[in-house]
Amino acid sequence: MRATIKDIAKMVGLSPASVSLVLNNKPCKISEASRARIKAAAKELHYRPNQIAQNLKSRQSNSIGLIVANIRNDFYSSFAKGVEESCRKNGKTLTICNSNFDELECLEIMYGKGVDGVIMCLASTSNKEEIEQAVASLEDNGVPYFLLDKTAKGEHSNFVLTDHLTGGYLATKHLIENGHKKIACITGPAHIEGSKSRFLGYKKALEEAGIEVDENLIIKGAYQYEDGYENAEKIIEMKGVTAIFAFNDMQAFGLYNKLKELGKNIPDDYSIVGYDNHLYATLITPPLTTVHQPVFDMGVKAGDAICSLHIDGDITVPPIVFEPNLVARESVKKIN
Amino acid sequence: MRATIKDIAKMVGLSPASVSLVLNNKPCKISEASRARIKAAAKELHYRPNQIAQNLKSRQSNSIGLIVANIRNDFYSSFAKGVEESCRKNGKTLTICNSNFDELECLEIMYGKGVDGVIMCLASTSNKEEIEQAVASLEDNGVPYFLLDKTAKGEHSNFVLTDHLTGGYLATKHLIENGHKKIACITGPAHIEGSKSRFLGYKKALEEAGIEVDENLIIKGAYQYEDGYENAEKIIEMKGVTAIFAFNDMQAFGLYNKLKELGKNIPDDYSIVGYDNHLYATLITPPLTTVHQPVFDMGVKAGDAICSLHIDGDITVPPIVFEPNLVARESVKKIN
Repeated sequence: MRATIKDIAKMVGLSPASVSLVLNNKPCKISEASRARIKAAAKELHYRPNQIAQNLKSRQSNSIGLIVANIRNDFYSSFAKGVEESCRKNGKTLTICNSNFDELECLEIMYGKGVDGVIMCLASTSNKEEIEQAVASLEDNGVPYFLLDKTAKGEHSNFVLTDHLTGGYLATKHLIENGHKKIACITGPAHIEGSKSRFLGYKKALEEAGIEVDENLIIKGAYQYEDGYENAEKIIEMKGVTAIFAFNDMQAFGLYNKLKELGKNIPDDYSIVGYDNHLYATLITPPLTTVHQPVFDMGVKAGDAICSLHIDGDITVPPIVFEPNLVARESVKKIN
Repeated sequence: MRATIKDIAKMVGLSPASVSLVLNNKPCKISEASRARIKAAAKELHYRPNQIAQNLKSRQSNSIGLIVANIRNDFYSSFAKGVEESCRKNGKTLTICNSNFDELECLEIMYGKGVDGVIMCLASTSNKEEIEQAVASLEDNGVPYFLLDKTAKGEHSNFVLTDHLTGGYLATKHLIENGHKKIACITGPAHIEGSKSRFLGYKKALEEAGIEVDENLIIKGAYQYEDGYENAEKIIEMKGVTAIFAFNDMQAFGLYNKLKELGKNIPDDYSIVGYDNHLYATLITPPLTTVHQPVFDMGVKAGDAICSLHIDGDITVPPIVFEPNLVARESVKKIN
């Protein structure tokens, strides 16, 4: 059994009240010698203040809940690492739920736990209705929350995200500056705001350069490896295409593998720009030019924000927007 | 403010005691109609039982702590996913600390939180003293614990691990069966049991095949990408080497990139076998032949084990050992 105030009192032969005063650093008339004995006994018995009792008193659990679709995904695990760092700095612990796409079940667990706030990374495979349900549940319950990325358009403003319009623009502009004119793209899911914004950025860069947006060069994807792998042949059949903007790095990895299997060289035959700056973008050959999302920093900021909010207080804060930047590596070739 | 029993009592015009009896499913003489009203009010007010108060009563926090060196590492995040799944099934939540190699600080956080048990993934970069300190702290505090992998030799038996001797043996035997005789290896840190065991497996397979163990073919590594990348030239200089056994996949990825840069082909010039079956083993070209560690399942088992232990109860359980298997892909070539 963990040692209690009573155990210490018994050991040193003083009252539990005296022990409590000393260990809680409250003003009292206890001699220095007794204080030292109490502290030594507390140490010897591995005494720790009862956090659960303290939480009950403050009605705070001092823990933050993080819901991620799949912690094995590098994007989410980087974000989680940032959130954890922030929580620790703020004296909170982090409880993680891996949703496997059932966010509502995870929310019930978090409510039951009495967390002080929830950060939710909604899966891009969640449909619009699921996303709205999750957000409605958080608002109904009055639990402070933060969302990673604006997965759904809504009234809520508590989200941390990358300015994806700029991201899409930077990726496309980089290809144009390297002489590419026929640039295919592979999008994310149609209902996801982040994918819509990347696409607006792609269009903006093309229009600025006086290049017409060609609907035939747009491949609808779902942020999956297979989007790249299974569409490589289709892209080869598109006459004149020299470059591809993949809306995430996983799609680019799929493109790499299938294009290589089909005897194509990157960047000699196809220049590719990805999005995310995944851990493996530097490990593949050639290293992938990609748009960097500062996911770890986003986790830290979301953590700081959620730790600053209080149940029953004002729980709305302006969106936190990060600017992406292009990381040029070796997957883009300059052509004439 | 979250709704309390009192709020519900006020809403339905009954006593808090009656509300409590109904919501806790205790036997009582309250009419069906009143029960229904109480339940409807509880639902409307989003009432949830006060978990913190319940925890205080049971002296259980119903949460398990997981300490990982780096959650961004695919190996740890797969394991964490398994632990989380088990915790949820067992009605516990999972609190994660990303140690950044300071396990003792994380342990203090976990003790303060009053977790019911700790699962610890010690970093392979931790030195022996740090590992022993962490284990001693857990034992001193009487907190049930489980370790991933037997990072240190000790009296403690609460660990879940892969039989790495068999793993090392399978990797090397596969190369020998494909005609390779001069097989270099890149090891993990010298003080790590898992690396020592892989090496014993490597030796066993060679000796069984009547091949002498050549000290010149052994490269000391630290389970890092750089171990492969920076030693590729050294391996090329080793006359007659046709195959390499990397003690983890990250090392193999490093080898891939540097060997390719140096104009070598895998598997035509060098056959490579990795270890772990990392998420990216299938994404690189050619797909990597590697030893599979069932890390997700190991997480589930460790979670089940820790959830079955109780503070102040017997907290020692026999080690849980998983058998690895070789996953043959395309990085090994049959030679004569």
